[in-house]
Amino acid sequence: MQARDLAVAYPTVRMDTDALTAARLLTEHNRPGLIVVDDKGHPIAVLPGSQVLRSFIPAYVQDDPALARVLDEGFSDEICAKLADHTVEELVPKDRPLLLIANDDDTMLEIAAMMAGNRSPLVAVLDGKGKDASLLGAITAHDLLGAILPPPVEA
Amino acid sequence: MQARDLAVAYPTVRMDTDALTAARLLTEHNRPGLIVVDDKGHPIAVLPGSQVLRSFIPAYVQDDPALARVLDEGFSDEICAKLADHTVEELVPKDRPLLLIANDDDTMLEIAAMMAGNRSPLVAVLDGKGKDASLLGAITAHDLLGAILPPPVEA
Repeated sequence: MQARDLAVAYPTVRMDTDALTAARLLTEHNRPGLIVVDDKGHPIAVLPGSQVLRSFIPAYVQDDPALARVLDEGFSDEICAKLADHTVEELVPKDRPLLLIANDDDTMLEIAAMMAGNRSPLVAVLDGKGKDASLLGAITAHDLLGAILPPPVEA
Repeated sequence: MQARDLAVAYPTVRMDTDALTAARLLTEHNRPGLIVVDDKGHPIAVLPGSQVLRSFIPAYVQDDPALARVLDEGFSDEICAKLADHTVEELVPKDRPLLLIANDDDTMLEIAAMMAGNRSPLVAVLDGKGKDASLLGAITAHDLLGAILPPPVEA
Protein backbone atom coordinates (compact mmCIF):
# COMPACT_ATOMS: atom_id res chain seq x y z
CA MET A 1 0.00 0.00 0.00
CA GLN A 2 1.36 3.41 -1.00
CA ALA A 3 0.66 7.04 -0.12
CA ARG A 4 -1.67 7.47 -3.09
CA ASP A 5 -3.93 4.66 -1.77
CA LEU A 6 -4.19 6.28 1.65
CA ALA A 7 -4.47 9.97 0.75
CA VAL A 8 -7.91 11.51 1.14
CA ALA A 9 -9.16 14.89 -0.06
CA TYR A 10 -8.26 17.57 2.44
CA PRO A 11 -9.57 21.13 2.78
CA THR A 12 -7.15 23.79 1.50
CA VAL A 13 -6.83 27.56 1.64
CA ARG A 14 -4.50 30.08 0.04
CA MET A 15 -2.42 32.74 1.74
CA ASP A 16 -4.95 35.40 0.71
CA THR A 17 -8.02 33.46 1.89
CA ASP A 18 -9.77 35.38 4.66
CA ALA A 19 -9.81 33.92 8.16
CA LEU A 20 -13.61 33.71 8.31
CA THR A 21 -13.61 31.37 5.30
CA ALA A 22 -10.80 29.35 6.90
CA ALA A 23 -12.72 29.13 10.17
CA ARG A 24 -15.83 27.86 8.39
CA LEU A 25 -13.81 25.23 6.50
CA LEU A 26 -12.32 23.98 9.76
CA THR A 27 -15.70 23.59 11.43
CA GLU A 28 -17.34 21.97 8.40
CA HIS A 29 -14.61 19.39 7.88
CA ASN A 30 -13.92 18.59 11.51
CA ARG A 31 -10.17 18.79 10.94
CA PRO A 32 -7.43 20.00 13.27
CA GLY A 33 -5.96 22.27 10.60
CA LEU A 34 -5.99 23.32 6.97
CA ILE A 35 -3.37 22.87 4.25
CA VAL A 36 -2.24 26.11 2.60
CA VAL A 37 -1.52 25.81 -1.15
CA ASP A 38 0.05 28.28 -3.59
CA ASP A 39 -1.41 29.44 -6.90
CA LYS A 40 -0.38 26.17 -8.55
CA GLY A 41 -2.07 24.08 -5.87
CA HIS A 42 1.31 23.06 -4.37
CA PRO A 43 1.13 22.63 -0.58
CA ILE A 44 3.31 25.14 1.27
CA ALA A 45 2.17 25.30 4.90
CA VAL A 46 -0.30 24.11 7.47
CA LEU A 47 -2.68 26.40 9.36
CA PRO A 48 -3.52 24.86 12.74
CA GLY A 49 -7.05 25.54 14.03
CA SER A 50 -5.60 27.09 17.17
CA GLN A 51 -4.03 29.85 15.07
CA VAL A 52 -7.36 30.85 13.53
CA LEU A 53 -8.53 31.64 17.07
CA ARG A 54 -5.69 34.15 17.38
CA SER A 55 -7.31 36.52 14.89
CA PHE A 56 -10.09 37.59 17.21
CA ILE A 57 -8.33 37.50 20.55
CA PRO A 58 -7.17 40.95 21.61
CA ALA A 59 -3.36 41.09 21.91
CA TYR A 60 -3.51 41.96 25.61
CA VAL A 61 -5.52 38.79 26.25
CA GLN A 62 -2.98 36.68 24.36
CA ASP A 63 -0.31 38.09 26.61
CA ASP A 64 -2.33 37.44 29.76
CA PRO A 65 -5.16 34.90 29.28
CA ALA A 66 -6.51 35.74 32.76
CA LEU A 67 -7.77 39.01 31.29
CA ALA A 68 -10.21 37.05 29.13
CA ARG A 69 -12.22 36.42 32.27
CA VAL A 70 -13.19 40.05 32.66
CA LEU A 71 -14.19 40.62 29.05
CA ASP A 72 -17.80 40.71 27.97
CA GLU A 73 -18.59 37.65 25.88
CA GLY A 74 -21.34 39.32 23.84
CA PHE A 75 -18.98 39.81 20.96
CA SER A 76 -19.95 37.18 18.40
CA ASP A 77 -20.66 39.73 15.64
CA GLU A 78 -17.36 41.39 16.34
CA ILE A 79 -15.56 38.06 15.98
CA CYS A 80 -16.84 37.53 12.45
CA ALA A 81 -15.86 41.05 11.48
CA LYS A 82 -12.38 40.46 12.90
CA LEU A 83 -12.02 37.12 11.13
CA ALA A 84 -13.07 38.65 7.81
CA ASP A 85 -10.40 41.32 8.29
CA HIS A 86 -7.49 38.88 8.50
CA THR A 87 -5.89 36.62 5.92
CA VAL A 88 -4.44 33.15 6.29
CA GLU A 89 -1.02 34.66 5.66
CA GLU A 90 -1.31 36.68 8.88
CA LEU A 91 -2.26 33.58 10.87
CA VAL A 92 0.23 30.99 9.64
CA PRO A 93 2.85 30.94 12.41
CA LYS A 94 6.02 32.79 11.40
CA ASP A 95 8.06 29.81 12.54
CA ARG A 96 5.70 27.68 10.48
CA PRO A 97 4.95 24.26 11.89
CA LEU A 98 6.49 21.84 9.46
CA LEU A 99 4.16 20.60 6.75
CA LEU A 100 5.32 17.09 5.95
CA ILE A 101 5.15 16.28 2.27
CA ALA A 102 5.18 12.76 0.82
CA ASN A 103 5.36 11.43 -2.72
CA ASP A 104 2.47 9.36 -4.01
CA ASP A 105 4.62 6.22 -4.13
CA ASP A 106 5.95 6.46 -0.57
CA THR A 107 5.20 3.36 1.45
CA MET A 108 2.99 3.11 4.53
CA LEU A 109 6.04 2.60 6.71
CA GLU A 110 7.78 5.65 5.24
CA ILE A 111 4.73 7.79 6.05
CA ALA A 112 4.56 6.34 9.57
CA ALA A 113 8.26 7.06 10.14
CA MET A 114 7.84 10.67 8.94
CA MET A 115 4.90 11.28 11.28
CA ALA A 116 6.54 9.65 14.26
CA GLY A 117 9.87 11.38 13.75
CA ASN A 118 8.32 14.82 13.42
CA ARG A 119 5.38 14.31 15.81
CA SER A 120 3.06 15.46 13.09
CA PRO A 121 -0.56 14.28 12.81
CA LEU A 122 -0.69 15.08 9.09
CA VAL A 123 1.24 14.40 5.89
CA ALA A 124 0.39 16.07 2.57
CA VAL A 125 0.71 13.81 -0.49
CA LEU A 126 1.82 15.22 -3.85
CA ASP A 127 0.30 14.21 -7.16
CA GLY A 128 3.52 13.55 -9.01
CA LYS A 129 7.00 14.89 -8.34
CA GLY A 130 8.65 18.26 -8.05
CA LYS A 131 8.12 21.61 -6.47
CA ASP A 132 5.14 22.43 -8.67
CA ALA A 133 3.32 19.15 -8.07
CA SER A 134 -0.20 19.74 -6.79
CA LEU A 135 -1.82 18.28 -3.71
CA LEU A 136 -3.30 14.82 -4.15
CA GLY A 137 -4.65 14.68 -0.60
CA ALA A 138 -3.47 14.08 2.93
CA ILE A 139 -2.99 11.25 5.40
CA THR A 140 -3.63 11.59 9.14
CA ALA A 141 -2.06 9.46 11.86
CA HIS A 142 -5.39 7.85 12.66
CA ASP A 143 -6.19 7.13 9.00
CA LEU A 144 -2.82 5.40 8.79
CA LEU A 145 -3.47 3.37 11.94
CA GLY A 146 -6.88 2.43 10.57
CA ALA A 147 -5.27 1.11 7.38
CA ILE A 148 -2.61 -0.83 9.27
CA LEU A 149 -4.71 -2.44 11.98
CA PRO A 150 -6.68 -5.53 11.07
CA PRO A 151 -10.41 -5.23 11.81
CA PRO A 152 -11.23 -6.19 15.43
CA VAL A 153 -12.24 -9.81 15.93
CA GLU A 154 -15.97 -10.07 16.75
CA ALA A 155 -16.63 -11.39 20.27
CA MET B 1 -21.12 30.10 27.40
CA GLN B 2 -18.65 28.28 29.62
CA ALA B 3 -16.25 25.36 29.26
CA ARG B 4 -18.81 22.91 30.69
CA ASP B 5 -21.24 23.79 27.87
CA LEU B 6 -18.63 23.15 25.19
CA ALA B 7 -16.85 20.06 26.57
CA VAL B 8 -17.63 16.79 24.84
CA ALA B 9 -16.77 13.24 25.92
CA TYR B 10 -13.26 12.38 24.82
CA PRO B 11 -11.51 8.99 24.60
CA THR B 12 -9.06 8.36 27.45
CA VAL B 13 -6.35 5.82 28.27
CA ARG B 14 -4.17 5.14 31.31
CA MET B 15 -0.41 4.89 31.46
CA ASP B 16 -0.66 1.09 31.62
CA THR B 17 -3.07 0.76 28.68
CA ASP B 18 -1.45 -1.20 25.87
CA ALA B 19 -0.67 0.57 22.62
CA LEU B 20 -2.91 -1.70 20.54
CA THR B 21 -5.95 -0.61 22.59
CA ALA B 22 -4.84 3.02 22.23
CA ALA B 23 -4.44 2.61 18.47
CA ARG B 24 -7.94 1.16 18.16
CA LEU B 25 -9.44 4.00 20.21
CA LEU B 26 -7.75 6.56 17.96
CA THR B 27 -9.11 5.01 14.79
CA GLU B 28 -12.62 4.49 16.19
CA HIS B 29 -12.99 8.05 17.45
CA ASN B 30 -11.30 9.84 14.57
CA ARG B 31 -9.32 12.01 16.99
CA PRO B 32 -5.79 13.37 16.63
CA GLY B 33 -4.80 12.10 20.09
CA LEU B 34 -5.95 10.57 23.35
CA ILE B 35 -6.09 12.04 26.85
CA VAL B 36 -4.17 10.06 29.47
CA VAL B 37 -5.84 9.97 32.91
CA ASP B 38 -4.56 8.69 36.25
CA ASP B 39 -6.30 6.19 38.56
CA LYS B 40 -8.67 8.90 39.77
CA GLY B 41 -9.63 9.91 36.24
CA HIS B 42 -7.61 13.13 36.48
CA PRO B 43 -6.10 14.12 33.10
CA ILE B 44 -2.29 14.08 33.16
CA ALA B 45 -1.02 13.97 29.58
CA VAL B 46 -1.90 13.79 25.93
CA LEU B 47 -0.86 10.96 23.63
CA PRO B 48 -0.64 12.25 20.05
CA GLY B 49 -1.58 9.73 17.36
CA SER B 50 1.82 10.17 15.75
CA GLN B 51 3.46 8.73 18.88
CA VAL B 52 1.43 5.51 18.70
CA LEU B 53 3.05 4.93 15.31
CA ARG B 54 6.45 4.98 16.99
CA SER B 55 5.82 1.70 18.74
CA PHE B 56 6.10 -0.42 15.62
CA ILE B 57 8.71 1.48 13.68
CA PRO B 58 12.15 -0.06 14.09
CA ALA B 59 14.56 2.34 15.77
CA TYR B 60 16.90 2.38 12.77
CA VAL B 61 14.02 3.53 10.56
CA GLN B 62 13.13 6.32 12.98
CA ASP B 63 16.72 7.49 12.71
CA ASP B 64 16.72 7.30 8.93
CA PRO B 65 13.22 7.21 7.37
CA ALA B 66 14.72 6.45 3.95
CA LEU B 67 15.39 2.93 5.24
CA ALA B 68 11.64 2.34 5.43
CA ARG B 69 11.66 2.15 1.66
CA VAL B 70 13.66 -1.06 1.61
CA LEU B 71 11.65 -2.89 4.25
CA ASP B 72 9.12 -5.52 3.38
CA GLU B 73 5.61 -4.26 4.11
CA GLY B 74 4.09 -7.66 4.80
CA PHE B 75 4.33 -7.05 8.50
CA SER B 76 0.79 -6.27 9.62
CA ASP B 77 0.63 -9.16 12.10
CA GLU B 78 3.95 -8.11 13.51
CA ILE B 79 2.65 -4.57 14.01
CA CYS B 80 -0.20 -5.73 16.22
CA ALA B 81 2.14 -7.86 18.27
CA LYS B 82 4.48 -4.89 18.70
CA LEU B 83 1.63 -2.58 19.67
CA ALA B 84 0.34 -5.07 22.24
CA ASP B 85 3.83 -5.20 23.74
CA HIS B 86 4.04 -1.49 24.51
CA THR B 87 2.20 0.66 27.02
CA VAL B 88 0.97 4.23 26.71
CA GLU B 89 3.61 5.22 29.26
CA GLU B 90 6.35 4.21 26.84
CA LEU B 91 4.80 6.27 24.05
CA VAL B 92 3.94 9.53 25.78
CA PRO B 93 6.80 11.83 24.77
CA LYS B 94 9.29 12.31 27.60
CA ASP B 95 9.09 16.05 27.09
CA ARG B 96 5.33 15.65 27.18
CA PRO B 97 3.41 17.99 24.92
CA LEU B 98 1.50 20.27 27.22
CA LEU B 99 -2.00 19.09 28.05
CA LEU B 100 -4.00 22.26 28.58
CA ILE B 101 -6.49 21.98 31.43
CA ALA B 102 -9.47 24.28 31.94
CA ASN B 103 -12.01 24.63 34.72
CA ASP B 104 -15.65 24.02 33.94
CA ASP B 105 -16.51 27.70 34.46
CA ASP B 106 -13.81 29.11 32.18
CA THR B 107 -15.24 31.32 29.47
CA MET B 108 -15.14 30.70 25.74
CA LEU B 109 -12.62 33.51 25.31
CA GLU B 110 -10.38 32.09 28.05
CA ILE B 111 -10.33 28.73 26.28
CA ALA B 112 -9.60 30.39 22.93
CA ALA B 113 -6.73 32.38 24.46
CA MET B 114 -5.24 29.21 26.02
CA MET B 115 -5.36 27.34 22.70
CA ALA B 116 -3.97 30.22 20.67
CA GLY B 117 -1.20 31.02 23.14
CA ASN B 118 -0.04 27.40 23.36
CA ARG B 119 -0.84 26.38 19.76
CA SER B 120 -2.79 23.48 21.13
CA PRO B 121 -5.76 21.93 19.29
CA LEU B 122 -7.18 20.48 22.52
CA VAL B 123 -8.13 21.59 26.04
CA ALA B 124 -9.19 19.11 28.74
CA VAL B 125 -12.01 20.35 31.01
CA LEU B 126 -12.15 19.34 34.69
CA ASP B 127 -15.34 18.41 36.49
CA GLY B 128 -14.84 20.60 39.54
CA LYS B 129 -11.62 22.02 40.98
CA GLY B 130 -8.35 20.66 42.27
CA LYS B 131 -5.69 18.19 41.33
CA ASP B 132 -7.97 15.20 41.87
CA ALA B 133 -10.85 16.54 39.79
CA SER B 134 -11.86 14.10 37.07
CA LEU B 135 -12.18 14.77 33.37
CA LEU B 136 -15.49 16.26 32.28
CA GLY B 137 -14.56 16.22 28.59
CA ALA B 138 -12.51 18.15 26.09
CA ILE B 139 -12.84 21.04 23.68
CA THR B 140 -11.11 21.15 20.29
CA ALA B 141 -10.23 24.29 18.34
CA HIS B 142 -12.79 23.48 15.68
CA ASP B 143 -15.55 22.74 18.22
CA LEU B 144 -14.84 26.15 19.71
CA LEU B 145 -14.94 27.85 16.31
CA GLY B 146 -18.21 26.05 15.58
CA ALA B 147 -19.75 27.40 18.78
CA ILE B 148 -18.52 30.93 18.13
CA LEU B 149 -19.40 31.32 14.45
CA PRO B 150 -23.00 32.10 13.58
CA PRO B 151 -24.57 29.60 11.16
CA PRO B 152 -23.85 30.49 7.51
CA VAL B 153 -26.52 32.56 5.77
CA GLU B 154 -28.40 30.45 3.20
CA ALA B 155 -27.93 31.69 -0.35
